[in-house]
Amino acid sequence: MELPMLTVGEYSLVYNMLSFCIASMVFSGLFFIIAKDRIAPQYRMSVILSTIVVSIAGYHYFRIFGSWEAAYVIEGANYVASGKPFNDAYRYMDWLLTVPLLVVELLLLCSVAAEKKEGLIFNTVVATVLMLVFGYLGETSGGSSLTDSRGIYGFLSTIPFVYIVWVLWNEVSVAMADKEGHLKVLYRNIRFLLIFTWGYYPIVYMAPFIMDAASATVNVQVGYTIADVAAKAGYGCLIYAIAKAKSDEDGYVMA
Amino acid sequence: MELPMLTVGEYSLVYNMLSFCIASMVFSGLFFIIAKDRIAPQYRMSVILSTIVVSIAGYHYFRIFGSWEAAYVIEGANYVASGKPFNDAYRYMDWLLTVPLLVVELLLLCSVAAEKKEGLIFNTVVATVLMLVFGYLGETSGGSSLTDSRGIYGFLSTIPFVYIVWVLWNEVSVAMADKEGHLKVLYRNIRFLLIFTWGYYPIVYMAPFIMDAASATVNVQVGYTIADVAAKAGYGCLIYAIAKAKSDEDGYVMA
Repeated sequence: MELPMLTVGEYSLVYNMLSFCIASMVFSGLFFIIAKDRIAPQYRMSVILSTIVVSIAGYHYFRIFGSWEAAYVIEGANYVASGKPFNDAYRYMDWLLTVPLLVVELLLLCSVAAEKKEGLIFNTVVATVLMLVFGYLGETSGGSSLTDSRGIYGFLSTIPFVYIVWVLWNEVSVAMADKEGHLKVLYRNIRFLLIFTWGYYPIVYMAPFIMDAASATVNVQVGYTIADVAAKAGYGCLIYAIAKAKSDEDGYVMA
Repeated sequence: MELPMLTVGEYSLVYNMLSFCIASMVFSGLFFIIAKDRIAPQYRMSVILSTIVVSIAGYHYFRIFGSWEAAYVIEGANYVASGKPFNDAYRYMDWLLTVPLLVVELLLLCSVAAEKKEGLIFNTVVATVLMLVFGYLGETSGGSSLTDSRGIYGFLSTIPFVYIVWVLWNEVSVAMADKEGHLKVLYRNIRFLLIFTWGYYPIVYMAPFIMDAASATVNVQVGYTIADVAAKAGYGCLIYAIAKAKSDEDGYVMA
């Protein structure tokens, strides 16, 4: 995709959101590392995986930030393409690593029965890879309408996407059924966050269908960034809260 | 080897795979550091060695990434050689450190009998050095066919290669024999991963025998990168899983 000319305001909005995202990822990760031993050992793996997820995302946003800076030069009152391509693929490299980890993290916390856990993890990880490969092909195809390559790959990507969301929704619902009080509220929140953040990605993907190139570029960058902050750092905080509540319930006391 | 002209897609594929590899190495390393104390002390050395292996690889891929960026400039719709050489030798410097560590790591986990362990480690480490020296000579000789310097050094490198794979296969098979259930499956997986990843390197090495320069460059870079991610980060995760399963079996409980 050719990079469109942006106003200073448009360019800076993306720039600042990317920086905000780096800070969110890196320092939520620092929090998880420091606070990890407040969680009982049997629930700690989810928090460890959160740490890895936000660290990987922090690395990629650092790269995306650098690529965004290099892709534009200021010219009068506007930013124009510098000739260096903006590498959107970083997001997909990131998701290829982090989405399977996020899925595993949630399944761990749902205490899925041992005999079906491995099969479920395998299926959802395969679905994740399919979803991202189709998404990447659509995103980099240069298409921008519902009926061209962006639309077709987007549709194909939606099939595994729906499967993963359906599996996770079900497992959280099952895990929630026998919980009470505060813990039940936390499970309900994470189920809501799941639908909210995952549901947001396809909407962002569709931005070029209805907008001019400049608006679409800004909305895609800002939209994915907000979704990633919520789905990784925000989600990690909720996972931490659930693990802490379970630890308290089990009477865990830090050494 | 002269660097061939590449399309934006070819150049970007290598670029993104190198970045993906950096993330895989660095953050699997972070995981091993954080999760290490979930492993019983007697199995922990393998996980510590994994951490060192992926860290060394992360460093070298950081260098390779920088070298790749510097070696090309965009010119119209293509990437052409900038005049700065692309330093492929980083890989061999990396392997010279990491391959002996990977071999030792696996032998440790196989609980090789004490009286033959040191001899076995010595022999495989010597074989590793021979394998890599011949491989390096072939890779940097400028040859590109089965009958020139690339082919001849490749053949010489294959002799110690076959010896190492044969030793490791045997030791894993012996270690596997008295295991049961989940642990046996994990040992079978690591034996499979061993053959799959090690077997992949010679195939990548042979790419220039059958392809034009641009395809060969892309395939060699992407191929070695995938092999390294599997043989170091992926292998490290499996080693972790085996060490964890053995710790659980011994009734290890985190302090």
